[in-house]
Amino acid sequence: MINFKELANEYKTPLYIYNLDYMTKQYEELKDAFKGRKSIMAYAVKSNSNLSVVKHFADLGSGADCVSIGEVRRAFLAGIPPYKIIFSGVGKSDDEIREAINKDILYINVESEAELGRVELIAKELNSTCRISIRVNPNIDPQTHPYISTGLHDNKFGVEIDAAKRMYIRAKNSQNLDPVGIHFHIGSQLTELKPIYESAEIVADLVRSLSNIKIELKFFDIGGGLGVKYDNETTITPYDYAQAILSTLKGLDLTVICEPGRFLTANAGYFLTKVLYEKQNGTKRFVVVDGAMNDLLRPSLYNAYHKIEAITDSKSELSKADVVGPVCESGDFFAKNYPLPILEHNDLLVVHSAGAYGFGMGSNYNTRGRSAEIALKDGKARLIRKRENFEDLVALEKEFLV
Amino acid sequence: MINFKELANEYKTPLYIYNLDYMTKQYEELKDAFKGRKSIMAYAVKSNSNLSVVKHFADLGSGADCVSIGEVRRAFLAGIPPYKIIFSGVGKSDDEIREAINKDILYINVESEAELGRVELIAKELNSTCRISIRVNPNIDPQTHPYISTGLHDNKFGVEIDAAKRMYIRAKNSQNLDPVGIHFHIGSQLTELKPIYESAEIVADLVRSLSNIKIELKFFDIGGGLGVKYDNETTITPYDYAQAILSTLKGLDLTVICEPGRFLTANAGYFLTKVLYEKQNGTKRFVVVDGAMNDLLRPSLYNAYHKIEAITDSKSELSKADVVGPVCESGDFFAKNYPLPILEHNDLLVVHSAGAYGFGMGSNYNTRGRSAEIALKDGKARLIRKRENFEDLVALEKEFLV
Repeated sequence: MINFKELANEYKTPLYIYNLDYMTKQYEELKDAFKGRKSIMAYAVKSNSNLSVVKHFADLGSGADCVSIGEVRRAFLAGIPPYKIIFSGVGKSDDEIREAINKDILYINVESEAELGRVELIAKELNSTCRISIRVNPNIDPQTHPYISTGLHDNKFGVEIDAAKRMYIRAKNSQNLDPVGIHFHIGSQLTELKPIYESAEIVADLVRSLSNIKIELKFFDIGGGLGVKYDNETTITPYDYAQAILSTLKGLDLTVICEPGRFLTANAGYFLTKVLYEKQNGTKRFVVVDGAMNDLLRPSLYNAYHKIEAITDSKSELSKADVVGPVCESGDFFAKNYPLPILEHNDLLVVHSAGAYGFGMGSNYNTRGRSAEIALKDGKARLIRKRENFEDLVALEKEFLV
Repeated sequence: MINFKELANEYKTPLYIYNLDYMTKQYEELKDAFKGRKSIMAYAVKSNSNLSVVKHFADLGSGADCVSIGEVRRAFLAGIPPYKIIFSGVGKSDDEIREAINKDILYINVESEAELGRVELIAKELNSTCRISIRVNPNIDPQTHPYISTGLHDNKFGVEIDAAKRMYIRAKNSQNLDPVGIHFHIGSQLTELKPIYESAEIVADLVRSLSNIKIELKFFDIGGGLGVKYDNETTITPYDYAQAILSTLKGLDLTVICEPGRFLTANAGYFLTKVLYEKQNGTKRFVVVDGAMNDLLRPSLYNAYHKIEAITDSKSELSKADVVGPVCESGDFFAKNYPLPILEHNDLLVVHSAGAYGFGMGSNYNTRGRSAEIALKDGKARLIRKRENFEDLVALEKEFLV
């Protein structure tokens, strides 16, 4: 049991709280599901990029899936070895590619023919050979939110099977490219096994057909996307997930790379916020809290559901309220028509499942400093990021005030 | 004519560019429209809170509409006098209220009965009297996007007419409250005159009925919200806007407070981004650029339209493309199916109308540093905020890496 009141007293609100022990449990369960094969769990840093969180996964033996050179640098700082670091993303700049090659990471996940050309050119300039994987777009509908589905042709991610084949042949013939892996990722928050299995099968077939032309890959990168329970979703067990994928790899000697993010962090995290006011407009009830969309954007951006728990002495009956923040937008809310007791000034609300895509999407909108972040391990709390203050917010612009 | 190529060379991309001369022109036109009355233009800092932009408005004689104590501090730093500063917002914390009272600003815009109680309590503790205005919710539909409409009962903003009346009487009878103003703001990006006129009329009626019970207000705060052209919207002229409002104030001796934000800044701003790759998935064309949703969230959050201009030597015919960024979300786009010529690596795209709610909603999602900001005045460019680098991003968490 987490003592939210004590944490609010010590660290103030709004506050992000991460239970590292829960992250360990999730990591071990997923790693264990792939034990029949060589595998690397490459933590998807974007889901929660706090350095101490990344370090926690490094200590568990995790690699890192990074989508910017900033994330690669985080992985290095946190102690993840270069040979477990992957650099993905549709829009890598020349500088990012150069640094990734110089850092000798496991491979760059290439997402277009044009990018393959840039990587080759830069590797040549550096007199180097760059290990690459190609992200394949299996054109399978993951049946999830349009903003987080990524494996269809009208998504920006990856390349079609035919294009991938051409690119592998080009890479094989290049002095500066070494094709070592293949990658696919059809979306986030997946709760259906079938699209995962079908995608893996399509990609495994491509591996076999490449092998027929003497292009032997070593890494089968299945991306991430394993769904979690925000509300009452039926989710896939890591065991079933691993079995579905492994069943497509018969006869292939490949190391599986898995890129879990949300699965490891979402339900390890809590966003703690304080009640400022109750207010009533007509028949509509609002609970105004000190956290806002600049702290946690998911409800506003995806209309995402987060369970909310009230920490209060109130014994009143539950009635429906919108939980809203101080930001001057009607889109600034954490929940709509959510059953809550009547609350007092300084009561607390715990927003659950806030460990993934929470703090990381935070902004300074309305000149609000971002929350502090704390980690819980073996029942002990410690600060892992200081609360932003006003001076932090104007640090890069104050000197230009003339 | 702005030389975007030169600016990209000197300041790199992605880059925010603000034309201060355009802001001046907009400010003067709006101020002028209210010349028949005493008026204060109180710049809505949230629309673009860069200190040098706020300072520019301060130099023009503007006040400031602030929605957090952070914005109040920005206004002070930029040299706006306290007697022209207003503090609004549905969720003010005790600390914020205390600081606003101590800073002796023009007034606090109160948004709920519960907040009125906190302001009174804190003013009493400080042995002070706090000037207040009350935000009234006229329950008029502004006919705009649900996230930016604010004047209906099912919005969190303001209080109903009856509640406002009760609150004014309570304030009048309090030793620690001085009711000086009335405020309404029905939404942002308004393009219809009728709802503005109707709201003003309802609120002016309330002023008269308060006057009948000897509550004499001084400030008629009409909020902001004047729409601008992103695409081919029909907008309201400042003159018609002012006339509609002033026509409701016959016989009343009130200073008009207007809180323009977007109207002053939106079309003064450009977001400059560089083309990384062209790619084709099936029949779908993508232009991948170095800017992303972490730089400019409006397309993703509101499905907002921004005009895009290509700076290229390409003579190819136009064809439709999605303009997307490097962030790993399908929601990371600036435009969908936008007609553009075939572009080369390092060509530039100018995203127009990016001066309001652009940089200010920016985040570090995917560990991407925020863009630099520059200001143009009399044809000269100067840096007004440095580009964020990796060290800035980890500054508040690095020390906790143990």
